[in-house]
Amino acid sequence: MTELLAEIACVGVDARRGGFSRHGFDHAELELREWFTAEATRRGLGVEGDRNGNLWAWWGEPGAGAVVTGSHLDSVPGGGAFDGPLGVVSALAAVDLLRARGFTPGKPLAIAVFAEEEGGRFGIACLGSRLLTGAIDPDTARRLSDSDGVSLAEAMRAAGLDPAGLGRDPDSLARIGTFVELHVEQGRGLVELGAPVGVASSILAHGRWRFSFVGEGNHAGATLLVDRRDPMLPAAQVVLAARRAAGRVEGARATIGRITPNPGGTNVIASTVDLWLDARAADDVRTRAVVAEIVAAAETAAAEEGCTVAVTEESYGDTVVFDPTLRDDLAGALGGVPALPTGAGHDAGILAGHVPTAMLFVRNPTGVSHAPAEFAEPADCAAGVVALADVLAHLAR
Amino acid sequence: MTELLAEIACVGVDARRGGFSRHGFDHAELELREWFTAEATRRGLGVEGDRNGNLWAWWGEPGAGAVVTGSHLDSVPGGGAFDGPLGVVSALAAVDLLRARGFTPGKPLAIAVFAEEEGGRFGIACLGSRLLTGAIDPDTARRLSDSDGVSLAEAMRAAGLDPAGLGRDPDSLARIGTFVELHVEQGRGLVELGAPVGVASSILAHGRWRFSFVGEGNHAGATLLVDRRDPMLPAAQVVLAARRAAGRVEGARATIGRITPNPGGTNVIASTVDLWLDARAADDVRTRAVVAEIVAAAETAAAEEGCTVAVTEESYGDTVVFDPTLRDDLAGALGGVPALPTGAGHDAGILAGHVPTAMLFVRNPTGVSHAPAEFAEPADCAAGVVALADVLAHLAR
Repeated sequence: MTELLAEIACVGVDARRGGFSRHGFDHAELELREWFTAEATRRGLGVEGDRNGNLWAWWGEPGAGAVVTGSHLDSVPGGGAFDGPLGVVSALAAVDLLRARGFTPGKPLAIAVFAEEEGGRFGIACLGSRLLTGAIDPDTARRLSDSDGVSLAEAMRAAGLDPAGLGRDPDSLARIGTFVELHVEQGRGLVELGAPVGVASSILAHGRWRFSFVGEGNHAGATLLVDRRDPMLPAAQVVLAARRAAGRVEGARATIGRITPNPGGTNVIASTVDLWLDARAADDVRTRAVVAEIVAAAETAAAEEGCTVAVTEESYGDTVVFDPTLRDDLAGALGGVPALPTGAGHDAGILAGHVPTAMLFVRNPTGVSHAPAEFAEPADCAAGVVALADVLAHLAR
Repeated sequence: MTELLAEIACVGVDARRGGFSRHGFDHAELELREWFTAEATRRGLGVEGDRNGNLWAWWGEPGAGAVVTGSHLDSVPGGGAFDGPLGVVSALAAVDLLRARGFTPGKPLAIAVFAEEEGGRFGIACLGSRLLTGAIDPDTARRLSDSDGVSLAEAMRAAGLDPAGLGRDPDSLARIGTFVELHVEQGRGLVELGAPVGVASSILAHGRWRFSFVGEGNHAGATLLVDRRDPMLPAAQVVLAARRAAGRVEGARATIGRITPNPGGTNVIASTVDLWLDARAADDVRTRAVVAEIVAAAETAAAEEGCTVAVTEESYGDTVVFDPTLRDDLAGALGGVPALPTGAGHDAGILAGHVPTAMLFVRNPTGVSHAPAEFAEPADCAAGVVALADVLAHLAR
């Protein structure tokens, strides 16, 4: 399994940021799709693309009631090697293991690769699974654009895909009997529990909000302080307000990891600043309360500096509680592995509203994720493959 | 004169930021150099490049005691149409006017175009004039790199120039008898004085400092607040500290217009944040005091978040007081125009330490600069050309 990860260890290496930058339909992600297609084909799996840019590799005839596993191949900017690819390579390795065991699935079995899960290029996380399930309007999706102004529609066309087909795909969805995503844990829950593998219980409510501040661009040397309307000031207040607001709600998190002053010159007072808030909490009410406090702080700070601020909710998902019956069934099939929640969003969280869905987590010794230091021990990755194979055999028996 | 500005009104237009992005040795700036060379050649001026990437267009034989005027063609990211180009096109128009008057210079006369005055690409303002005067080490300069990792040496080679020649150029410097730079004012001093044109008295002490914060990159959803070392927090504190510190010193300015979290993903706690402080005040002591207070705030805030911060002085220039005899001589030759200080840096400020140097300012109705809204009325630009022609005739008589 680690050999499979090693095969793609040079694709999308980001020398400037460290780690990997692999984004939906960019050069690196397309290379990984080709690699996946070749690996699946080599195993005799039939690979097809759906209308939303997701890939499906079928063991047996595609059909209803299928047991589907998989994850994504894209990364955050400068991300780690495991978030996404571990679920895909573990699925390929689980197929190998099941065959070595002489297992023949009693139901169709598929490996899915979802497009742009991180939203690192077009800003909306879980884009492929959102489109598949109808959670995002296809016209809105087609118009999403990356930082170079390239729209999703243009990026898909450049990759030889037809953006006209985007949107809810009831046929693909109807084929999924059960979906199971294996993922590296993004925290130290399994470390504390002393277990290499666990099942997911829930995902925090979470969303992304863009704060667009408008002030007045001017010369950094020639403009008196009293004459300034500098949008960096309220933007900085939002960074501090986010930490403060999340600190008041147990378990809540609020982060600004992306901020873009325009024009972005050292000797220039910015005319506008865009920043993105990632906020999460145990439920909708708590998440909304955190965000409302940050928005209020932004509005006050903007007004004090003679600036304006507009806040746009770019995505939002309420708390996901994974199907408890399925969760307990799989935990039992794995000999009683623990169940644990996560703060991270996943395609499984999108699919959970439509089909029976579960997740397996693999232990992460440092808990670090979305960074080059993200890691899982080879022995734990191997345990993840065995667990995934056991689960697939259990579900497809 | 406005016709000359119109000729270059489509070069380096920045559709994303607004205004113009023309940076040292990039496509747009090289196109402007070609345009300048053609315009100067069409006027019978002999154009030559020096060892540091600056251009010189000579009326008459190059030689000692020359009267030199000029400015720069590069801009800040998303800058205005006047900062830089106004001084260059006014010089060309002043040559036309002097010839129409039948004037023949009694001394060599040249128009200089300095490279990378804004530091918008390689981070050091007045790079061409700093290299010419030996104010920056040529090895350091060659290694400067832009945001794509292209070094100054590579950029020069790509433009057909030899970076091996960089460094103090006593021959070029020795030819300058007097240097006069015409520039759009970057403030409303001339508006308040009711004058279309004035002469410069001084430039504030000013510099650029890079603050590099190091924390720990991690997942924005899965990482508890207590486990975070998020460099965005101390970076935000620096933005607020800069305003606070400058506010305590009369006339001081401190600005953060550029900030780069790495990796810069919405759902990623940054591992590092770089930001750039532009700070200026009336003299060295005041400027240093402002910067020291901001650095102290950065260190405290970084420690509180478990981060580190390193501060690098990327450039610094003490207060420039322009030669009072020359200043009064030129103000008198122009019928008693006012003298006024500026907070903005200029190549003239670098040359002032080496040769008799003066500046002419042209009225800016809004005071806005380094932004697309930067403007000067055509009548005031025409008055600037007449004033520059009068000054050149006075000095080269």
